[in-house]
Amino acid sequence: MQFQAARSKFSLFCVHQTVSGLIRLNFYQVKAEKRGIKVSNTYENMTGRRQNEPPSTGNRNLPLKTPKGTRDYEPGAMALRQRLLDQVVRVFRKHGAVPLDTPVFERKELLAGRYGEEAKLIYELQEQGGEPLALRYDLTVPFARYVALHNLSSMKRYQLAKVYRRDNPQPARGRLREFYQCDFDIAGAYDPMLPDAECVKVVCEVLLQLDIGAFVVKVNHRKLLDALLQVCGVSAEMFRTVCSSIDKLDKMPWDAVREELILQKGLQVETVEQIGMYVTLHGGLELVDRLAYDAKMNCHPGAKEALDELRLLFQYCALFQVADRLSFDLSLARGLDYYTGVIYEAVLVGGDNDDEGTQAAFVGSVAGGGRYDNLVGTFNPHRKQLVPCVGVSIGVERLFCIMEARTREEPRTNHTQVYVASVHKGLHLKRLEILNRLWAAEISAEHSYKTNPKLLDQLQHCEQYRIPYAVIIGDGELARGVVKLRNVATRQEEEVELEMLIEKVSSQLLNDP
Amino acid sequence: MQFQAARSKFSLFCVHQTVSGLIRLNFYQVKAEKRGIKVSNTYENMTGRRQNEPPSTGNRNLPLKTPKGTRDYEPGAMALRQRLLDQVVRVFRKHGAVPLDTPVFERKELLAGRYGEEAKLIYELQEQGGEPLALRYDLTVPFARYVALHNLSSMKRYQLAKVYRRDNPQPARGRLREFYQCDFDIAGAYDPMLPDAECVKVVCEVLLQLDIGAFVVKVNHRKLLDALLQVCGVSAEMFRTVCSSIDKLDKMPWDAVREELILQKGLQVETVEQIGMYVTLHGGLELVDRLAYDAKMNCHPGAKEALDELRLLFQYCALFQVADRLSFDLSLARGLDYYTGVIYEAVLVGGDNDDEGTQAAFVGSVAGGGRYDNLVGTFNPHRKQLVPCVGVSIGVERLFCIMEARTREEPRTNHTQVYVASVHKGLHLKRLEILNRLWAAEISAEHSYKTNPKLLDQLQHCEQYRIPYAVIIGDGELARGVVKLRNVATRQEEEVELEMLIEKVSSQLLNDP
Repeated sequence: MQFQAARSKFSLFCVHQTVSGLIRLNFYQVKAEKRGIKVSNTYENMTGRRQNEPPSTGNRNLPLKTPKGTRDYEPGAMALRQRLLDQVVRVFRKHGAVPLDTPVFERKELLAGRYGEEAKLIYELQEQGGEPLALRYDLTVPFARYVALHNLSSMKRYQLAKVYRRDNPQPARGRLREFYQCDFDIAGAYDPMLPDAECVKVVCEVLLQLDIGAFVVKVNHRKLLDALLQVCGVSAEMFRTVCSSIDKLDKMPWDAVREELILQKGLQVETVEQIGMYVTLHGGLELVDRLAYDAKMNCHPGAKEALDELRLLFQYCALFQVADRLSFDLSLARGLDYYTGVIYEAVLVGGDNDDEGTQAAFVGSVAGGGRYDNLVGTFNPHRKQLVPCVGVSIGVERLFCIMEARTREEPRTNHTQVYVASVHKGLHLKRLEILNRLWAAEISAEHSYKTNPKLLDQLQHCEQYRIPYAVIIGDGELARGVVKLRNVATRQEEEVELEMLIEKVSSQLLNDP
Repeated sequence: MQFQAARSKFSLFCVHQTVSGLIRLNFYQVKAEKRGIKVSNTYENMTGRRQNEPPSTGNRNLPLKTPKGTRDYEPGAMALRQRLLDQVVRVFRKHGAVPLDTPVFERKELLAGRYGEEAKLIYELQEQGGEPLALRYDLTVPFARYVALHNLSSMKRYQLAKVYRRDNPQPARGRLREFYQCDFDIAGAYDPMLPDAECVKVVCEVLLQLDIGAFVVKVNHRKLLDALLQVCGVSAEMFRTVCSSIDKLDKMPWDAVREELILQKGLQVETVEQIGMYVTLHGGLELVDRLAYDAKMNCHPGAKEALDELRLLFQYCALFQVADRLSFDLSLARGLDYYTGVIYEAVLVGGDNDDEGTQAAFVGSVAGGGRYDNLVGTFNPHRKQLVPCVGVSIGVERLFCIMEARTREEPRTNHTQVYVASVHKGLHLKRLEILNRLWAAEISAEHSYKTNPKLLDQLQHCEQYRIPYAVIIGDGELARGVVKLRNVATRQEEEVELEMLIEKVSSQLLNDP
């Protein structure tokens, strides 16, 4: 029998060892390349290739790379990313949100004046005889534009899409110029803090589900910040720029921020000292209560409103069993211009010295959001009623970065269930016929695209790509109306009547774990 | 009992009628707007809204719209699009392809010289102090760039992503400036037509699965076209521009193309007459055989090679049971520069006079592709071996356009399983507590974000959004340790012990069809 002969020629144990070695190599190459080490894909040279004439066109010396701050997602990364996005979407749907998609670019003037000092990071398109356009910078402004354009009074939507920022990329920390955002937002005039608390709950659910390690959700209130600056003697037009200095307190010590406020922003020393007394405070509900009795704060109507809302937020979050995650932090300011109320930011707090702890500390903020009650209104100023909004954006790229570093084994990237192999030449038409029957039965199946492939190469392909079954055909068996069905992992083979192949494979696949 | 009292106040039958009326209105609004008719969303004004102060910022008069040739995908469209993309991915995976994602923009010079006369439609980014960038025009060039960059010798990948073309948009025909492409490509040095036939099979499987109506797959061969032009006396440097005229034969009669070739492209009349004899031919395998005996063709080595390959393609496609879909069409040229061998294009041929037939004829080509053996090589010219490729791109936007027009009922856009309603005020904390338990059990649940919502509004929300169950709480019932569980569709209610609520809801959801 031809088939038996072919099999006995090779030591498949040896093949298996080589193949797993290659897979391991490949996976660590990917990891190494992520850390900026260029590793040549040596294993690629082991697959057979025809000698062909060199390409007739293109002797140019092209700079062969992706644009600065961007990356390709190879199949292994795609499998991991898809799993992550699926988990995020499941939480969003659990809270009743519906999907939305908007164009990758917007009319430039719609983005203008939304992002404060960050506006310089917007990618603009070349004017090629049409409207001035810019790539979206976040998903919040397009959402508000959508609500305004369609004249909606309420909507709870989620959107998963890439946004673009001409920032300084730090790939190791998951900071890229093209990156996914996963946003959950609630638009509509509702009662205080009910939608806001649900946004905080959504963040906590996502992070708990991803099992990403310890985290806290810092909260603050824009109106409290404004009140604080006012009572300290900062003029209203300086609020935003002072806030953006305060926002740096998660990366810089107070002394450095203090210096920036005095030397760069030109504030009086005593004003800055007073600010410092407040913005270095953080705590829980007890801090909310303490501030409510603060001599300066308790006679400021904005501060009172903000503290009442924060108290309510703590109460609702307690019912959602996430209050212990909240950290009221008066230094949290968030850079964007459009926030008007509660703001929050989830931060990983990996404290231990292990790999993951370091990684977490490295990554920092992984989600953020807040209330923006006026943004929709700025798009249609003639409309009488506001559409208040609150939302949260999950920084999946950073979460992905941690999960990728943590993954010990590359996920399987294909969904092939059966590989159709032939033991000798002259069988490619028969392979096509069997493939066609497998496909008709909705079974994922592949074969070699060579008319006369080596059996060893075919079996090696199955092991490398972790394809569970191989159908092996040979003249001897075909003459008897049978084929071999091989379990690739166990290497056990059995003869199956060709007529019964589809039933047999289907039931095997059903029984697989 | 408070709850009973509240219920008896309203005629829910009347509510139901109004609500379905609204849903229907909304759906037809969407349809009407798709045909370019702007319909104001009057139903939105029926939901209760608070009076709020007007926005403090933003009295600008912004042109509130999406950029030319782009659209928002509202939740209903998203649900339909996701279903379509899932079906396409299932076919791609059935054939063993693995996913890939590349950045939305590429370095400009990598796109230069790839798209022939279409290159003027590329969106360029403004130079803001970095590399010159352009939005991707297709997924083929980024794929070839990826294969070259990572020095791969083979890969079978799929990619679903948006591409950008500054074309004249025709939204009714699904022709937009931002649109999805779904690509399946096989890179690697293999035996003739084995990967090519599988690409044709993939196209047919996708279109059959979508049940989109009758279609044919036109096939031709770039080398045959070149041979044909050569034997008719066209000089080599004129091949591509003559091809782009010939390619118009699916939209223009031969006489118009003839005139363009003579008057605009400056060809001799007898040359054009000879071309016309060939490019108006179409048929099946018999036409391949007939041309093989053609006096001019049979002594041209390029023509012979092309005809041999086409014969093989027909043979393999017969084994895949799709040969009857093939139409060998000598006028098929395809505009892009990079094709080197077999080319194909799937075209809907809705012949009947019904709605769908007209739509199909309107839409035309829905998939296309071919062999491009030199593209990867142009990215790394110093590499000895070519990486030949063949692939296909599914024009999902056009398919989506047909399916959207065909859909009679808007798909459900949310996944909410339970709505937690209260019959009187003072119950919002209890609602939050119940919601939290439902979420912990992975049940999708929502409530009103008002502390004191009207029961009617709450039940109306359930019917409008087709949420299957409502948990209704009232003080009377709560005192007895029970809640009402309402089946929204049948309006049947039963009392359930609060302690057993999660189990009860879970088992109800499991039993749902």
